[in-house]
Amino acid sequence: MTNTLYLPEIREMLANNDKAGLEEFCTALHPGRTTEFMEGLTADEIWRVLQHTDAVNRAEIFRYFDEEKQVELIESQDRDEIAQLIGDLKPDDRVDLLEDVDSAAVDQLLPLVPDEERRDILRLRAYPEDTAGAVMTTEFARLSETLNADEALREIGRQAENLETIYYLYIVDDEDHLRGLVSARQLVSAIGRSDQTVGDMMERDLVTADVFEDQEEVAAKVARYNLLAIPVVDAEHRMLGMVTHDDIIDVVREEATEDAHRIAAVDPLEDGYLQTSLWTLTWKRGIWLTVLFFAALLTAVALEQYESIRDALPWLAIFIPLVISSGGNTGSQSATLIITALSTGDVHLRDWSQIVLREAMMGLFLGGFLAAIGYVMASIMLGDSRLAAVVPITLVLVVLCGTLTGSILPLLFKRMGLDPAIMSNPFVAGIIDIVGIVIYMNVALWLL
Amino acid sequence: MTNTLYLPEIREMLANNDKAGLEEFCTALHPGRTTEFMEGLTADEIWRVLQHTDAVNRAEIFRYFDEEKQVELIESQDRDEIAQLIGDLKPDDRVDLLEDVDSAAVDQLLPLVPDEERRDILRLRAYPEDTAGAVMTTEFARLSETLNADEALREIGRQAENLETIYYLYIVDDEDHLRGLVSARQLVSAIGRSDQTVGDMMERDLVTADVFEDQEEVAAKVARYNLLAIPVVDAEHRMLGMVTHDDIIDVVREEATEDAHRIAAVDPLEDGYLQTSLWTLTWKRGIWLTVLFFAALLTAVALEQYESIRDALPWLAIFIPLVISSGGNTGSQSATLIITALSTGDVHLRDWSQIVLREAMMGLFLGGFLAAIGYVMASIMLGDSRLAAVVPITLVLVVLCGTLTGSILPLLFKRMGLDPAIMSNPFVAGIIDIVGIVIYMNVALWLL
Repeated sequence: MTNTLYLPEIREMLANNDKAGLEEFCTALHPGRTTEFMEGLTADEIWRVLQHTDAVNRAEIFRYFDEEKQVELIESQDRDEIAQLIGDLKPDDRVDLLEDVDSAAVDQLLPLVPDEERRDILRLRAYPEDTAGAVMTTEFARLSETLNADEALREIGRQAENLETIYYLYIVDDEDHLRGLVSARQLVSAIGRSDQTVGDMMERDLVTADVFEDQEEVAAKVARYNLLAIPVVDAEHRMLGMVTHDDIIDVVREEATEDAHRIAAVDPLEDGYLQTSLWTLTWKRGIWLTVLFFAALLTAVALEQYESIRDALPWLAIFIPLVISSGGNTGSQSATLIITALSTGDVHLRDWSQIVLREAMMGLFLGGFLAAIGYVMASIMLGDSRLAAVVPITLVLVVLCGTLTGSILPLLFKRMGLDPAIMSNPFVAGIIDIVGIVIYMNVALWLL
Repeated sequence: MTNTLYLPEIREMLANNDKAGLEEFCTALHPGRTTEFMEGLTADEIWRVLQHTDAVNRAEIFRYFDEEKQVELIESQDRDEIAQLIGDLKPDDRVDLLEDVDSAAVDQLLPLVPDEERRDILRLRAYPEDTAGAVMTTEFARLSETLNADEALREIGRQAENLETIYYLYIVDDEDHLRGLVSARQLVSAIGRSDQTVGDMMERDLVTADVFEDQEEVAAKVARYNLLAIPVVDAEHRMLGMVTHDDIIDVVREEATEDAHRIAAVDPLEDGYLQTSLWTLTWKRGIWLTVLFFAALLTAVALEQYESIRDALPWLAIFIPLVISSGGNTGSQSATLIITALSTGDVHLRDWSQIVLREAMMGLFLGGFLAAIGYVMASIMLGDSRLAAVVPITLVLVVLCGTLTGSILPLLFKRMGLDPAIMSNPFVAGIIDIVGIVIYMNVALWLL
């Protein structure tokens, strides 16, 4: 989304020290657009532009730069000013970000960050990656049960500057135990009703996330209950923070991408494709490729065993790729369907018998159909319809084997507490390769 | 999430006509939990329970049933009561839902739905599927520019009952042209400042969605700008509706699942896996399997051409699966990496040269590594290291071919305006199968 149209104008304003112009540039646009207009500038130029707005808006604009640019700014600009900026960032964002900053720079910066924010950073850093604790923000509105709507709104107005969101307002007791929730909408509807307190209005049955809960499960809860945010609590139900809608969207996208990578036997990347070093990429792909390569070597070993039939019927070799790719493709389809259905909550482990039955039926339909085409083509190519019968019989069996392996394997992984997406497709294909060859050779032996 | 623990209690309350108990059950819990407790009940029983709460809460609880149960309730219960319920549902939800209801039932119900809601349903139905218009809600808060914060909050309080969300408040002129936006937070912060009008506070640079814009692009905008909702406008910038955060999460999940299906050569399902008929599933898989099957038949044709070398060196057949699966796996990895990076906006078409270069390097690394293992194993199996050299040379070339095809194909699809995810993995694998065999046979011819 880089927009280079206005770069010369921004540079001119900087050269002329046009304060009014730069102030206007920093405030007139959505902060996300402001960053897009600055993407062609150097880190020094960007920082000079950002001097022309207040700290809150500076942090808001900074938030929309891509991570690479953010890290560059943090590592290159004045330590004191950057420490101030870090204090103004969203609690969860800055923790994420500092993980990518050179650790020497972090060590220099942290002592300069205001006390409260520094303690907050250190606390959030302690939560394991991909847990609710690691993605939550610690800035949320707290209300007392005894206020009425007008008082509560004035109180939020006072807190609003330091809050990420005021849409959900949590009611906690003196020891931070979560007691209930009112929405801004409820408060606004109750304006003027001075006898009704927040305690009277609040919802008491709340959907919460445990601080160590996996972020994927947290996102599933938010989606299931259509929440804007979810409170994060500890084992004693004390409120520690909240995970907000924008972080949930990021989690959903991140997890979907990770699943897609796992399905294709790539160890999920932590950074973007272009930001990941060639060496890391090679490693993340190479480990699984090597595993799959050894599985594929077994096909060579299997084929070696059938030397007599291969020598007797050398044309069998022609249809090897057709047989194994048909099984592999069907298996990938089944595995992907089951993995995505499991991850969206569309099917559950308890549905296993229904799933396997459906896949078996589908294996017979699809295998039967491909076998019919295969029989015609093989008869033409071999000029002998008796010999050609090996191909369709093998195809039905291999495709059936594909749908069954493709559906059972993810269910089995899930049952064992593993991620069902782990390298499923190539793993399924690898199994089908070997089984397919054994089936093919044995059908040939039996029939001919 | 079915919870059968309380079913006997609910049934007992129904049998005893325990009004107070049922009223409490309908209001005490989060509506999403209330539905979970009722999942084991029949449609008739559920409808009797829901008589014990007001229309707004009834619609709220109804919303959390799965689609199958919703359709069953709509088709089976009293027409007048159901028409009333449909009037109370969220505008976008009811349009979605009615698409799955038996059309005869819809024809009977629609005339019973209150006028205004019926017109709204007919209008929303006119937008093509998967566009902003089809997922937007038409209920949103409208404010006039001249109000101050206190007046605006009182005005929203009056509208709140009919609104899905009050967090973003849109300012429109007399002809509904979108002028700006204030957040509830801004208003709450400005309580008591009677001289400041909404027009003074509002943001004027808004991120908007065109009513015919693809829902995936709309979701990407919301994620990019961290929005809670996005206004939907027509070509004249008139506000027609808004798409809210919960719909965006659904879109992100839906699109990720569709991509995963396409990558595995399954035509994306419209309903859940278990809700889709066997016949539909077979069709959605069969069409692509057939295409891939004909591609695989080409491998048989290709292999037939190399009869002389196959006859001279029958052991070549042993390594066919190894060669093509190595290329196919590498190609799937590359395709998946590029497709997911394109869809998350991590890479763009303009990065193509960098992507292809990286993939070429990785192809050489990965191919070289697998070739080394392959050479050792082939030497052992064949007992002849000169003959065995065919395997590693082929592997390097085929793996390189896999990374290049896997990365170039999605970029090409994208460039042509197609979805880069369309059956990429098996398509890549199919290409590699044929190219792999041609490479293998020619390396053998050349070397031996």
